[in-house]
Amino acid sequence: MSAPKRIVIVGGGFAGMNVALHLNRTDTEVVLIDKRNFHLFQPLLYQVATGTLSPGNIASPLRALVRKQKNVSVVLGEVTGVDTDSREVILEDGRIAYDALILATGAPGHHYFGNPEWGKYSPGLKTVEDATHIRSRILLAFEAAERESDPEMKKKMLTFAIVGAGPTGVELAGAIAEIARLTLPGEFSTIDPKQCRVMLVEGLDRPLPMFPEELSEKAKQHLDEVGVELHLNSFVRDIDADGFSVEVDDEMHRYDCRNVLWAGGVQASPIGGVLCESGRCETDKQGRVKVNEYLQVPGLEEVYVIGDLAHAPDENGDPLPGLAAVATQQGRYIGRSIKRRHAGKPVEPFRYKNKGILATIGKSKAVADFGKTKLSGFTGWITWLIVHLILMMQYDNRLMVLVTWFYSYFTNGRNARMITHAGPTQYKRDKREGELAWDENRRWRKEA
Amino acid sequence: MSAPKRIVIVGGGFAGMNVALHLNRTDTEVVLIDKRNFHLFQPLLYQVATGTLSPGNIASPLRALVRKQKNVSVVLGEVTGVDTDSREVILEDGRIAYDALILATGAPGHHYFGNPEWGKYSPGLKTVEDATHIRSRILLAFEAAERESDPEMKKKMLTFAIVGAGPTGVELAGAIAEIARLTLPGEFSTIDPKQCRVMLVEGLDRPLPMFPEELSEKAKQHLDEVGVELHLNSFVRDIDADGFSVEVDDEMHRYDCRNVLWAGGVQASPIGGVLCESGRCETDKQGRVKVNEYLQVPGLEEVYVIGDLAHAPDENGDPLPGLAAVATQQGRYIGRSIKRRHAGKPVEPFRYKNKGILATIGKSKAVADFGKTKLSGFTGWITWLIVHLILMMQYDNRLMVLVTWFYSYFTNGRNARMITHAGPTQYKRDKREGELAWDENRRWRKEA
Repeated sequence: MSAPKRIVIVGGGFAGMNVALHLNRTDTEVVLIDKRNFHLFQPLLYQVATGTLSPGNIASPLRALVRKQKNVSVVLGEVTGVDTDSREVILEDGRIAYDALILATGAPGHHYFGNPEWGKYSPGLKTVEDATHIRSRILLAFEAAERESDPEMKKKMLTFAIVGAGPTGVELAGAIAEIARLTLPGEFSTIDPKQCRVMLVEGLDRPLPMFPEELSEKAKQHLDEVGVELHLNSFVRDIDADGFSVEVDDEMHRYDCRNVLWAGGVQASPIGGVLCESGRCETDKQGRVKVNEYLQVPGLEEVYVIGDLAHAPDENGDPLPGLAAVATQQGRYIGRSIKRRHAGKPVEPFRYKNKGILATIGKSKAVADFGKTKLSGFTGWITWLIVHLILMMQYDNRLMVLVTWFYSYFTNGRNARMITHAGPTQYKRDKREGELAWDENRRWRKEA
Repeated sequence: MSAPKRIVIVGGGFAGMNVALHLNRTDTEVVLIDKRNFHLFQPLLYQVATGTLSPGNIASPLRALVRKQKNVSVVLGEVTGVDTDSREVILEDGRIAYDALILATGAPGHHYFGNPEWGKYSPGLKTVEDATHIRSRILLAFEAAERESDPEMKKKMLTFAIVGAGPTGVELAGAIAEIARLTLPGEFSTIDPKQCRVMLVEGLDRPLPMFPEELSEKAKQHLDEVGVELHLNSFVRDIDADGFSVEVDDEMHRYDCRNVLWAGGVQASPIGGVLCESGRCETDKQGRVKVNEYLQVPGLEEVYVIGDLAHAPDENGDPLPGLAAVATQQGRYIGRSIKRRHAGKPVEPFRYKNKGILATIGKSKAVADFGKTKLSGFTGWITWLIVHLILMMQYDNRLMVLVTWFYSYFTNGRNARMITHAGPTQYKRDKREGELAWDENRRWRKEA
């Protein structure tokens, strides 16, 4: 394959952005297409959803990130198709020809195990808008409970369930438990936020299943300490406005709960399916495109798929997990590969180097697996903090993030606790009840 | 009038919040009602609209602000009416009785001089959602121009007009000019953001009409230096999707412009009108409730109206301006008055002490009027900076704001430059054109 001249990258996440950055000072022409105008530091998105960070803290404008690279153009637009014969990507209103195409549109959807209707009651966390929506939902739950006079309904409103005990689920559950136990107490008249119930529901037999078993054990302890109720071996069978059902050992259990969040599974971007419609490639169950060890689509060697959109084999032939670290390494690898092709050098297959995985549980606990070294508790958390600050080094936002973390750590405060985009009236009480009056004991009481 | 026991405050802005804070450690029972769950530091809202600060930087949760005051309850809800006979405020779904009522719901609307249809093309800046909407509009203008192949249309897309040269208009215009001249250059392929035109349109004969004339002169100079085109004595007569018309000395002028922002006039909250429906009080043209020198509604002495909702007389009988400083002093005055009534002491009429007014123009210029002392240029700006940090002292966000300002000052960067809530596709090109193709010169070209 000859050295490609114009490289078109679709998606400015960890995968796509790293391709662009690694093609600096080459004689390639790079076009970076994204439907959003910013790169998102997704591992910290749960902190936006739980009111610690603001969206601006974890977003960096794509144009600013590549402004010094004269060979890169940024195009804001949505790719709707790929013409692999004429070698063009198709946008809503135009076409861009490529010599090499890198598809890195990620997994922006949620996989509700064939029950898309659950999505209505159980939002997932992928975009900035998802995060501010979940933030409003969490805060409105406490506000609604404060305004409620029926104790059973109050309880239902103060019950949170997170489906899926991977890193996102564990981190969300820990942060919600801390909002209830550390941030909000003392702020309400008719409820005690500490009475809030936070459930973490997982089908497998341990939390953080991609971690070694001993760290899952530590995570269990940490979750217990921050007040998260862990439900293992529990398969969600139904979710509606008032609660959810799980199956445990062939028995069905129903839980009353007004706040179910989804961290159960993701769905790859539809562009993978569009690419493979021609029958020239194959997608897996989650919509990921199967690629070879060079991250190329077999038979379409000028098309690379990387990041969460890729079903790339590890050394044992199993698919690599959808982690920022995998996406970043794949992006760098593609950048290097293209440079090597330009220099006429041979290209080695992609090998993922697991440099470690981390997950926080609450404000000062985390688990970290670096192969031989396994950390947990406060040591794990300090490590988590340092690793994330290093990962953010290339972004301008790191100082703001650090200041915000310091503030939150010492005060338990969460300043980005805003209910936004919730319509003109920020709170609607169920109509089934009559009018309430505020009584002399600072409680809402039903009117006679 | 006897000392009121239960004080109901409607609105948690500068006026209402300061009443609540000044009733700390009294034996009153305070109920603070707001439809939003946060207090907003509105003087810096234009910095959210122009991508420097994040909404979280200028918002403080109401419950957190009063958490240490055991006598204050916060109610999230919208007040739809007041029953002055039974002394109750009416919420959508309940009632709260008061002994004294403080209405401080501000001026959340825009006054389009009887042309509400202009609102569609000319958004104003009052809420956090307004700010993120305007931010998206500004950023999308550059993105749309980048994708446009028609030079006339490009020009129209890169023309911004701000109606109204009060502090908000001047600050918005200065910030937009700086986005174009300092932040964005070097980031686009097909446009030069420096070519952008920023017009500031004012009906009177000078900008910042509430400042002394010599400072208006300085403001003119500063606006010229940052590249804002000032159009004085210009009355807006029409605004539509493609431009606007102004009347100057009986002549009509039409300007092509796709981005008109409104800083021309505000409209008080409708609750003033609802209160005065009974004929027991009077509102002015902007919907403000006329109050006496004690800030009471004449004839309804237990009802106070303060802040932007009030038409309160100054020493000459003219209405006080809608400034955060006026609202803050009025809030403190009410807090003190109530305490004095409880102590059986006489209450003096409210007197506004003008401690000075300030407005920034671009990143390192401002004008400040402290009576005898008048500042402008860099000295004015340093003063503006210090004053705003002092004003933010009671909020936890000041450190974050300071860090962000330092960063922006030295890098010209604006990290909160996100296009959000703009629908699934962030950019739509006009359908009138055919498909475009990205050519070898990194330009969009119409397909043959």
